[in-house]
Amino acid sequence: MTNSYRPIIWKDETLYLLDQRKLPLEEIFVEVKTLKDCALAIKDMIVRGAPCIGFSAIYGMALWIKSQKSVDEKSTRFACDEMISARPTAVNLSYEVNRCYELITQGIKSGHSLSTIAETLVNFGHAQFEHSQRINTKMAEIGFNELNKLIPDRNWNLMTHCNTGFLACGSIGTALGVISYSNTKNRVNHVYADETRPYLQGSRLTAFELAKENIPYSLVVEGAASYLLSHNKVDAIFVGADRIAANGDTANKVGTSTLAIVAKHYNIPFYVVAPLSSFDISIESGKEIEIELRPMEEITEVKGIKLSPANAQAVNPSFDVTDHQFITGIICEKGLINPAIKGDLVRVVKS
Amino acid sequence: MTNSYRPIIWKDETLYLLDQRKLPLEEIFVEVKTLKDCALAIKDMIVRGAPCIGFSAIYGMALWIKSQKSVDEKSTRFACDEMISARPTAVNLSYEVNRCYELITQGIKSGHSLSTIAETLVNFGHAQFEHSQRINTKMAEIGFNELNKLIPDRNWNLMTHCNTGFLACGSIGTALGVISYSNTKNRVNHVYADETRPYLQGSRLTAFELAKENIPYSLVVEGAASYLLSHNKVDAIFVGADRIAANGDTANKVGTSTLAIVAKHYNIPFYVVAPLSSFDISIESGKEIEIELRPMEEITEVKGIKLSPANAQAVNPSFDVTDHQFITGIICEKGLINPAIKGDLVRVVKS
Repeated sequence: MTNSYRPIIWKDETLYLLDQRKLPLEEIFVEVKTLKDCALAIKDMIVRGAPCIGFSAIYGMALWIKSQKSVDEKSTRFACDEMISARPTAVNLSYEVNRCYELITQGIKSGHSLSTIAETLVNFGHAQFEHSQRINTKMAEIGFNELNKLIPDRNWNLMTHCNTGFLACGSIGTALGVISYSNTKNRVNHVYADETRPYLQGSRLTAFELAKENIPYSLVVEGAASYLLSHNKVDAIFVGADRIAANGDTANKVGTSTLAIVAKHYNIPFYVVAPLSSFDISIESGKEIEIELRPMEEITEVKGIKLSPANAQAVNPSFDVTDHQFITGIICEKGLINPAIKGDLVRVVKS
Repeated sequence: MTNSYRPIIWKDETLYLLDQRKLPLEEIFVEVKTLKDCALAIKDMIVRGAPCIGFSAIYGMALWIKSQKSVDEKSTRFACDEMISARPTAVNLSYEVNRCYELITQGIKSGHSLSTIAETLVNFGHAQFEHSQRINTKMAEIGFNELNKLIPDRNWNLMTHCNTGFLACGSIGTALGVISYSNTKNRVNHVYADETRPYLQGSRLTAFELAKENIPYSLVVEGAASYLLSHNKVDAIFVGADRIAANGDTANKVGTSTLAIVAKHYNIPFYVVAPLSSFDISIESGKEIEIELRPMEEITEVKGIKLSPANAQAVNPSFDVTDHQFITGIICEKGLINPAIKGDLVRVVKS
């Protein structure tokens, strides 16, 4: 298991969160001592990424228990709701906080002391973090073995899009996890990271992660894909996923599908790396996935500076859908899926 | 012939240049009254684009003649060299200024008055401008007719990359010329303009040009190509060219080839629009074109603001080469070239 940099640290009864708003120019950990601190950190996006928000909230509930003289079901529900309201639409947040509610109320019923209940919560936070780390490490191993089969005799030049590393996942990551794991095996020669317009997750976050792990990398603009691939600069591409349909069609950050089509033209292997929680076999294909349009200012401005004429118009789809025909393999914790084989995805998911 | 907006105006014995450094947020014309003013405007990039620099320099030489009491070959050479030194590597600038030298020294030999020589230069400037306008209008007509054959029964949704309109060309433009001309015929429904990272020619310049001509448009990030084309948002794509090889392979702004590959996948017609002066039939294919790498700060910073970690690395190819198999047609002033037909390009160029 790799020991990558962690943006969430529980130490000496305190939670420390890397302030991701200040990245990549400043690397500051914020001390979180109360439920209110934690809810605010989630609301203000000091911490981001579904897994990281979930872990933080669990530790935040432990902090709440430690601050109380006594708790009951009502006060617990109230505290849980305060935490959930920090980002009401984050499914993972409410899921983890509601599991905390169960643990706390079970503890009360069993007559456990508050310090015992707090310890239960801290251990639950650790367990969830480690579970995610195990899943991601498993996927990283599968990706590594796949690369090793493809190119056994030299180190690899890899490419990625958007941000899928420890900043979003707490540790290791998904697509970047494969790269990071391969680097610990000294098999990475160079990584090309898309800057990922418009929100620049590549420039801001992936570059920070790669630098942190001392992996040699270059940022590139999305338009440079054909240049890079035609000049044999890339051996394989790894991306994450927001949602994967039963046939393997994959919704991910805008630009993923564009990159996959170019990769197919140049015969460069293109892998999706995502845990089973991103799979949605209730939908047959990507055609059923609706694409959210985001504010046009993400394109027309950078950090409040206008890049285009006053009243400039823009269309800003947040995601695109990559057709499964362009995906060489989908890596989840249960194994490698070949989207060219009809039914392979559902078989692996149900295995 | 369309009467598009002009960034270069000769009026009442004075040259007015649109200050392109201030675009797109301010639209200011700078008054140029002397050779020194003109050379400085070229050096400081108030005026940009090879054709525009050439036109400006011719008018600048007329201003010089008008300021003199007498001129001879030596003072003319000195004045010409001063103008050329404003951008010593601009081939078009020295070409046009040396033609001015010929006109002036011929005028001296023929005993013409300085005001007659100045008038000759102004008329030469007008003629060069109109020649370029005629070529571009011719290409725009060819593009329009092609679109009309493809889609006769409704208005068109078009897409473009980088900046190819009147700001670079003086009037009409190349790829944007087709769009602008089609708009004067009321056949344009909507234009999607790539923002064109890293230098943002689309956001800064193409958006300004489209707004100026009241053409409905949306800026998009390059990564959105697959999203747009898969959602049937685009009927045809038009781009310019920096250099076209004998087999039709086309060097153009980075991202062009990426877009062309995606267009081919979705069966969207992809046209290159470029005057014969951009053709180089001395090279057989795009493989012989070397791609310049530009400073990485164009990717890691915007307007001096850091977007990525300190010491972030980037690779910044300025161009890419689009394989001719992805180009539906190449439009030049002599007609439409089909790159799928071997030898068609050379036949048209030599016709």
